[in-house]
Amino acid sequence: MIILGIDPGFAITGYGIISYNGNRFGVLDYGVITTTAEIPHPQRLLLLEEKLLRVINEYKPEFVSVEELFFNNNAKTALQVGEGRGVALLCAARAGIPVYEYTPLQVKQGVTGYGRADKAQVQQMIKVLLGLPKIPKPDDAADALAVAICHAHTYRSISRVLNSGL
Amino acid sequence: MIILGIDPGFAITGYGIISYNGNRFGVLDYGVITTTAEIPHPQRLLLLEEKLLRVINEYKPEFVSVEELFFNNNAKTALQVGEGRGVALLCAARAGIPVYEYTPLQVKQGVTGYGRADKAQVQQMIKVLLGLPKIPKPDDAADALAVAICHAHTYRSISRVLNSGL
Repeated sequence: MIILGIDPGFAITGYGIISYNGNRFGVLDYGVITTTAEIPHPQRLLLLEEKLLRVINEYKPEFVSVEELFFNNNAKTALQVGEGRGVALLCAARAGIPVYEYTPLQVKQGVTGYGRADKAQVQQMIKVLLGLPKIPKPDDAADALAVAICHAHTYRSISRVLNSGL
Repeated sequence: MIILGIDPGFAITGYGIISYNGNRFGVLDYGVITTTAEIPHPQRLLLLEEKLLRVINEYKPEFVSVEELFFNNNAKTALQVGEGRGVALLCAARAGIPVYEYTPLQVKQGVTGYGRADKAQVQQMIKVLLGLPKIPKPDDAADALAVAICHAHTYRSISRVLNSGL
């Protein structure tokens, strides 16, 4: 299966496209979509949409996986990130791709098997699982790959339970 | 000119379509777009997009006017409202309609001429300016009409300055 992981943001959105077949991962693409403050606010969202749709059309993912975001105190940041996140979820919904959301704890657990893993451990595991020569950069792209891997592992677990008839 | 005012939200988005010609206001439409929690999260954004696009296609506004939002403490709400707001701005950008953003102070100032007007005063002024038989309900629709009126008044002031050659 092909999974698109998205790390939503306003100025920078990470994405990662992975394949997962027979317990083997492959990386199809990853990177970030950035827009600069010189571009008018609504046009930035339009650019984000265009680039995300290009990725979706090229790789035709069967699942979209995104992290549930938590902000402790910065409501202004939350509002802006929410705008980018809304556009990302809309792109998935319009393409008819089911969206799965995972908490940060679930992502760590899903990637490393350990919910209290630190960032370096998560990134190291991404590199190993995906067979990359080095840790993917920038962090937003790595985070997008992490949530995609989380979905692959979680979905496999769910499928096993379902197939076992429990 | 025709102006679409939007009061963005996640579960409920207010909209108001007004015309403004030769200092006279008219109301073409107003209301709210609501989605319920039973609908999956991304599909709610898709519904919001569909309904906003229907309004845009029907009335072909030349301007979109939205309030700049401020949240003091609730980052979770800000994230969700941001998602709805992102979809609304995207719809405007995709339709090629310029978007103007106004602070709450500017909206009060733009509708009543007085930046410290209270909600009841603003709503009363909306009713009078638009020649409505009563105050528009719900509040989200009234807020959308307010930001549309604010744009009409602000834009007129700007045009006057520009036309005076200053």
